[in-house]
Amino acid sequence: MSNPTAAIIIIGNEILSGRTQDLNIQYIAQKLSSLGIKLNEVRIIGDYSKQIINTIIELKDKYNYIFTTGGIGPTHDDITSQAIADCFGVELEKNPIAYELIKEYYISRGQELNSAREKMAYIPKGSSLIYNPISGAPGFIIENIYVMAGVPHIMQAMFEEALPTLQKGEEVKTKQIDVMIAESTIAEELTTLQNKYPQVEIGSYPFEIPSKQFGTSLVLRSVNLNLLDSAYSELQTLIKKYI
Amino acid sequence: MSNPTAAIIIIGNEILSGRTQDLNIQYIAQKLSSLGIKLNEVRIIGDYSKQIINTIIELKDKYNYIFTTGGIGPTHDDITSQAIADCFGVELEKNPIAYELIKEYYISRGQELNSAREKMAYIPKGSSLIYNPISGAPGFIIENIYVMAGVPHIMQAMFEEALPTLQKGEEVKTKQIDVMIAESTIAEELTTLQNKYPQVEIGSYPFEIPSKQFGTSLVLRSVNLNLLDSAYSELQTLIKKYI
Repeated sequence: MSNPTAAIIIIGNEILSGRTQDLNIQYIAQKLSSLGIKLNEVRIIGDYSKQIINTIIELKDKYNYIFTTGGIGPTHDDITSQAIADCFGVELEKNPIAYELIKEYYISRGQELNSAREKMAYIPKGSSLIYNPISGAPGFIIENIYVMAGVPHIMQAMFEEALPTLQKGEEVKTKQIDVMIAESTIAEELTTLQNKYPQVEIGSYPFEIPSKQFGTSLVLRSVNLNLLDSAYSELQTLIKKYI
Repeated sequence: MSNPTAAIIIIGNEILSGRTQDLNIQYIAQKLSSLGIKLNEVRIIGDYSKQIINTIIELKDKYNYIFTTGGIGPTHDDITSQAIADCFGVELEKNPIAYELIKEYYISRGQELNSAREKMAYIPKGSSLIYNPISGAPGFIIENIYVMAGVPHIMQAMFEEALPTLQKGEEVKTKQIDVMIAESTIAEELTTLQNKYPQVEIGSYPFEIPSKQFGTSLVLRSVNLNLLDSAYSELQTLIKKYI
């Protein structure tokens, strides 16, 4: 059985304009790694209905899970819920549970439920809710699409809420060695090692320390712990002659 | 004349596994904004030949510029150059200028030019080089594809080198007000303002300060300075009653 697969869709003009540094991709990517779900690709797109619809349609049958972030707030530029309803040919409907959660949240803060806040209770028909312990207004799941907020700490809380619904795969185990050797010095031997262990993914990532010395992070990843250990032990032998 | 358009393709398993926080998207996005080039989408994909080829083929005729980062180093997992050569049906060929630059770089550091280092001189036929003032091995441009390194400070230096080849558009001007009002409070009035100024993109981004108070960054963007100023002045009036 192979591991479940996933894609992330980050929705937000503020990422494409360079105004905002995305912090959601790495969080979700790390969680998926630990769950044994393979993240195959990420898309960052704007707050445009057509682009959201086309992206969802292109990806939804390709992967087991699609996670979206952004565009489910109260303002005019929050159009993700409507676009996703359009994807599935369903209506947005006022979800009574979402409505109560949102009302409760605002009332507890001494605020009224205006139409902008009420808008967040409109969820595509047939969805289940993803609870939001931070700010009331929930995300939702429709088929294999997980629709979450864009604000990182709210998205993280929603991801935790949705976690029990995800089918886990075999965890990818990781081993890493950082060496003060330029990657080009050991590149040929790494190729030989990679060819010997096709089931272990060997990544080589250069880094530079402030004294202008170059090093390399060697990262081994595999679902097979025995192969991982063997490859790691050969790697340790390989680098010994350079350090 | 409308502004040129662009997409970014980040190539690297280390981003998809969550090991590495991407820092290249925001840098390129901000540069493109200031050049008046519209960034329409970003893709993050793995170091897999088929995925790179399919992504390039899907995007290259859709946008004026495609910027890729990652996968042009000396190791076995650096396969971007070969994949891009395959996209265009050309061979990788040993570029004599790239070869000299790489040789010079390693000789100046007292190192030999092994085959892994020499591999970086192999560039798709018909490309022009993007010089790399940091670590010798160049990026390249083929048709509208700009192929750059993944290490942020090297990518940034390459982007600066390539900058004069880019056709500029009208700069998108930006005005921003941060207010200590929840975005749901002013959402309806923002909708009215957005409808009145379709040529000004109004973004609304919630934030939270440590004392648990919520605020909103209101960001106005337009190539038309007069419209931007008018919308901004109306926005100032609008928020006055809340502060």
